[in-house]
Amino acid sequence: MWVYVKDLKKHIGQEVELKGWVWRSRSSGKIAFINLRDGTGIVQVVVEASSVSTDTFQNAKKLRMESSLIVKGTVKEEARAPGGVEIHAKEVIPLQIPKEDFPINKPDHSIEYLMDHRHLWLRSRRQMHILNIRDAVLKGIRKFYWENGFIQIDTPIFTGAIGESAGNLFEIDYFDYGKVYLAQTGQLYLEAACMALGKVYNLGPTFRAEKSKTRRHLIEFWMNEAEVAFYEHEDNLKLQENLVSYIVKFVLENAAEHLHALKRDISKLEKIEPPFPRITYTEAVKLLQKKGFNIQWGDDFGGDEETEIAKQFEKPVFVTHYPRKAKAFYMQPDPENPDVVLCDDLIAPEGYGEIIGASQRIHDYNLLIERLKEFNLPIDAYDWYLDLRKFGSVPHSGFGLGVERTIAWIAGLEHIREAIPFPRTLYRIHP
Amino acid sequence: MWVYVKDLKKHIGQEVELKGWVWRSRSSGKIAFINLRDGTGIVQVVVEASSVSTDTFQNAKKLRMESSLIVKGTVKEEARAPGGVEIHAKEVIPLQIPKEDFPINKPDHSIEYLMDHRHLWLRSRRQMHILNIRDAVLKGIRKFYWENGFIQIDTPIFTGAIGESAGNLFEIDYFDYGKVYLAQTGQLYLEAACMALGKVYNLGPTFRAEKSKTRRHLIEFWMNEAEVAFYEHEDNLKLQENLVSYIVKFVLENAAEHLHALKRDISKLEKIEPPFPRITYTEAVKLLQKKGFNIQWGDDFGGDEETEIAKQFEKPVFVTHYPRKAKAFYMQPDPENPDVVLCDDLIAPEGYGEIIGASQRIHDYNLLIERLKEFNLPIDAYDWYLDLRKFGSVPHSGFGLGVERTIAWIAGLEHIREAIPFPRTLYRIHP
Ligand SMILES: [Mg+2]
Ligand SMILES: [Mg+2]
Repeated sequence: MWVYVKDLKKHIGQEVELKGWVWRSRSSGKIAFINLRDGTGIVQVVVEASSVSTDTFQNAKKLRMESSLIVKGTVKEEARAPGGVEIHAKEVIPLQIPKEDFPINKPDHSIEYLMDHRHLWLRSRRQMHILNIRDAVLKGIRKFYWENGFIQIDTPIFTGAIGESAGNLFEIDYFDYGKVYLAQTGQLYLEAACMALGKVYNLGPTFRAEKSKTRRHLIEFWMNEAEVAFYEHEDNLKLQENLVSYIVKFVLENAAEHLHALKRDISKLEKIEPPFPRITYTEAVKLLQKKGFNIQWGDDFGGDEETEIAKQFEKPVFVTHYPRKAKAFYMQPDPENPDVVLCDDLIAPEGYGEIIGASQRIHDYNLLIERLKEFNLPIDAYDWYLDLRKFGSVPHSGFGLGVERTIAWIAGLEHIREAIPFPRTLYRIHP
Repeated sequence: MWVYVKDLKKHIGQEVELKGWVWRSRSSGKIAFINLRDGTGIVQVVVEASSVSTDTFQNAKKLRMESSLIVKGTVKEEARAPGGVEIHAKEVIPLQIPKEDFPINKPDHSIEYLMDHRHLWLRSRRQMHILNIRDAVLKGIRKFYWENGFIQIDTPIFTGAIGESAGNLFEIDYFDYGKVYLAQTGQLYLEAACMALGKVYNLGPTFRAEKSKTRRHLIEFWMNEAEVAFYEHEDNLKLQENLVSYIVKFVLENAAEHLHALKRDISKLEKIEPPFPRITYTEAVKLLQKKGFNIQWGDDFGGDEETEIAKQFEKPVFVTHYPRKAKAFYMQPDPENPDVVLCDDLIAPEGYGEIIGASQRIHDYNLLIERLKEFNLPIDAYDWYLDLRKFGSVPHSGFGLGVERTIAWIAGLEHIREAIPFPRTLYRIHP
């Protein structure tokens, strides 16, 4: 019976069949050891010359790194083994033994080399742990929305030239229609959908033709956006801190072994629970000035500023009430000070930077027209978006969470490129 | 306390606040009725002149379709009402009353008109039911993979020119790199990932620059692909019939009210359980010839052929063992007849067409090289894909499920364009 490594503990004393690859192997005289991986874990297979056929023992000795094989044997309890079990082999059947050394076999390959071999690098333990954490983060996001009555609305990738910043868009020739663009956000569509369904979210790939080459940027990344009718700024902040806390808790409960394997300091993640600290943009500027940053009210924050702000807190921190002119046209002004808007950036601890951008949206038709003009945006292109303010407009709020940045923070990765299976950066679309 | 319509039954006798939009309203003399929708349901609000202020009663009479409003009132049990409750209003607070008639207010708008107003059309009951069914289908897909030990691997959208059919690709200028293409499939990447993680799946948008204008085609659609190391043709068929049966059951259990509202014949869906019938391509050709179709062995099936085959069965039917030359280069030949391959198309009942394309993949390096040559494909572009056959190659299989086609079938939709929130077709990318 074919059993996965992760399930071996349920089969102690039984004869099973394992299918996988050689992680490491060694032999000496009358005994061979194969560390077999199958994607769910690694188990040690013991092959004793005295208890198998000559063929099987010869097969076991021939194996090399990443040979594929089938092993038949008995599951034995073994307290000293990592998974608590080992396999006493009866039969070892090689499927394919590589003719060359496996390309990823040294501890000091350059990052360029590793990325060139991403299709094979995925088999390393570190990458398997990261991908399992990614899987848990994505599950956590979904479960949060499922439990909170949100409907998934998949927003389109092909769009006209509307969105946040028309600058960094990828263009496509669309049949006889002319140019279309790859969406940088589904927000405007989610705004339409939340007027139909109340609470909606998306989760999918996003594209930014930005010539940034930092450890926090990808050209193709995943984003989760949510939008809720009748939510105002305060509701929006609570939703975000609940979501982020839920994700972290979910990963701690479901992927702790992978965090441990990456030597992530779990105690830092265990502190992540609502409420999150909040400071206004204006307070943040004062704080940065006091720390010696050359920054003026009205400037946007870069990575260094975000890191300095985050350092003051053990949890993610909301920076709220940015200057209207530094943010997108659709943000609702603060009724107490129309120079700032009801928005927030959520900055992760430990220097991982902004993981959420959020705001209450303008719901007044005339104010929105005024802002489109102030930002020199083509009013015609926003025809349907303006309709939402003509037919039963209501206050509403939402946000976008960067999935890879969230993964990088939770897993404790130095660079975001490891947080996605096949990263696309400025100079890389292969493999 | 703000309560959603779907939760009203838990608040019978209590005073609540509802936030939403006017679905329909009418008044006569001393009484007004407002059907309020909030995205989770519709409830009747009764406003009696004798029990509210003059302002509130005047407000209630002023309301028109899609006005946004807040209602405060008491929840009363009312067996004759659709949700079993109605609201006796204390206060009616209009938020925004449209100056124009709501654009979607007649039963006979043309499909072009409705699609031009998709951002508002989403508020119609029919579209809300469909989007709830879509949400349930997507949840069902995920839960299946979660329960069966699969890891989500998000495959890239930006890719080099490799994939199934280089014909229908959208092109992008990628910085100094040159042309890149929007992926039509993540299969090749999933093949790499399944060698690392065993069982993997994706679920995301896919793009096909195909000038098809049928009720089964979208330019941008969602696809779910899965790939499993060590799975052969037979395992692959079982995985597919289990997945599809799971999705249907999940929707029946979690979205039955929405199926009923669309008048879907539930009894047809209740029959969907494993095993699914199977016929070979060769048998299907004979069947079609007997029915008078002008088709020869070697031809591919179109929509009409698929519908005729599907008519013979009450469940989805697997058509297996297609001619090698009619399918993609990477399919494993049948050991008993190398002119056909170990593949299947799963054809939905009731004329909904192909919802899955699947195959066992070639795992032998030399055979794969031979096929690349036979199909005139550039071997260089497949360098990393070929690596998978050099380092621990194993038999493996997978498939791709068309999400919108699956939704169209389950919801009983005539056209696939209603199965996605913002459809992109040959002539439409707006709104
Ligand atoms: Mg920022
Ligand atoms: Mg077909």
